[in-house]
Amino acid sequence: MEYLHTMLRISNIDESLEFFCNKLGLVETSRKESRQGRFTLIFLAANGDVEGAKKTNSPLLELTYNWPSEDGSVEDYNSGRNFGHLAYRVENIYDTCQELLDKGIEINRPPRDGYMAFIKSPDNISIEILQNGERLEKQEPWASMENIGSW
Amino acid sequence: MEYLHTMLRISNIDESLEFFCNKLGLVETSRKESRQGRFTLIFLAANGDVEGAKKTNSPLLELTYNWPSEDGSVEDYNSGRNFGHLAYRVENIYDTCQELLDKGIEINRPPRDGYMAFIKSPDNISIEILQNGERLEKQEPWASMENIGSW
Repeated sequence: MEYLHTMLRISNIDESLEFFCNKLGLVETSRKESRQGRFTLIFLAANGDVEGAKKTNSPLLELTYNWPSEDGSVEDYNSGRNFGHLAYRVENIYDTCQELLDKGIEINRPPRDGYMAFIKSPDNISIEILQNGERLEKQEPWASMENIGSW
Repeated sequence: MEYLHTMLRISNIDESLEFFCNKLGLVETSRKESRQGRFTLIFLAANGDVEGAKKTNSPLLELTYNWPSEDGSVEDYNSGRNFGHLAYRVENIYDTCQELLDKGIEINRPPRDGYMAFIKSPDNISIEILQNGERLEKQEPWASMENIGSW
């Protein structure tokens, strides 16, 4: 048995790809549209996982966009507490968080400790950013940056 | 950037390990208890991912058990619709589903198509089981097995 993917439902493809690809840096590896099932599946991989994902299809993030019903109604995707977050590790958490800030992403839990940060997707999925390896030395402006909201 | 893990909150460690390890077959790779933070983190890997997970810490499933507060109160972990499921692939989906049935796990979506099945964790997290590679030939009793509940 091998891990394949985590599936998230998304309410808007453009907003989700803006967040996950243009801002967080994931890469679209494949897409499937079903006119009969009225859904679009978009598979993403972290940039460091793309080569592996091409060979093994894993690990991936699957975004499911369910098309509006014929009468135009859409489901509201609420959050639950049994799911916690998705975690990605990065080479330099300060650089990553600065890039996210520059792109307009709110850092809900800044990396005050040089190790851990949290942001949220357009559909309120918590994403944890972790420093690869040892934590970095504490550094301003991060060390005294306040939390914003929940994650 | 590389994928690290998906975190789920669990309401009972024994019931969750019974499900994820003894029944689904994942392997505990590490555990961290924080008396100060009053939580236990348990990291699991699919059996086919254990060797890789030892080297790279990925891909993992992180189970977070938050200890009851001092007054004994616990949070109820409800489900939300923005999270969909976790997916694992297996060598033979019929064998895997038969083992799960034999261990008392309900197959919410049986692998009628020889390709896809769904079960649920004790905290109502949907788990997708996918046949590795091409779908298997349709076969009874699976082909005519009914869905049970939702997933």
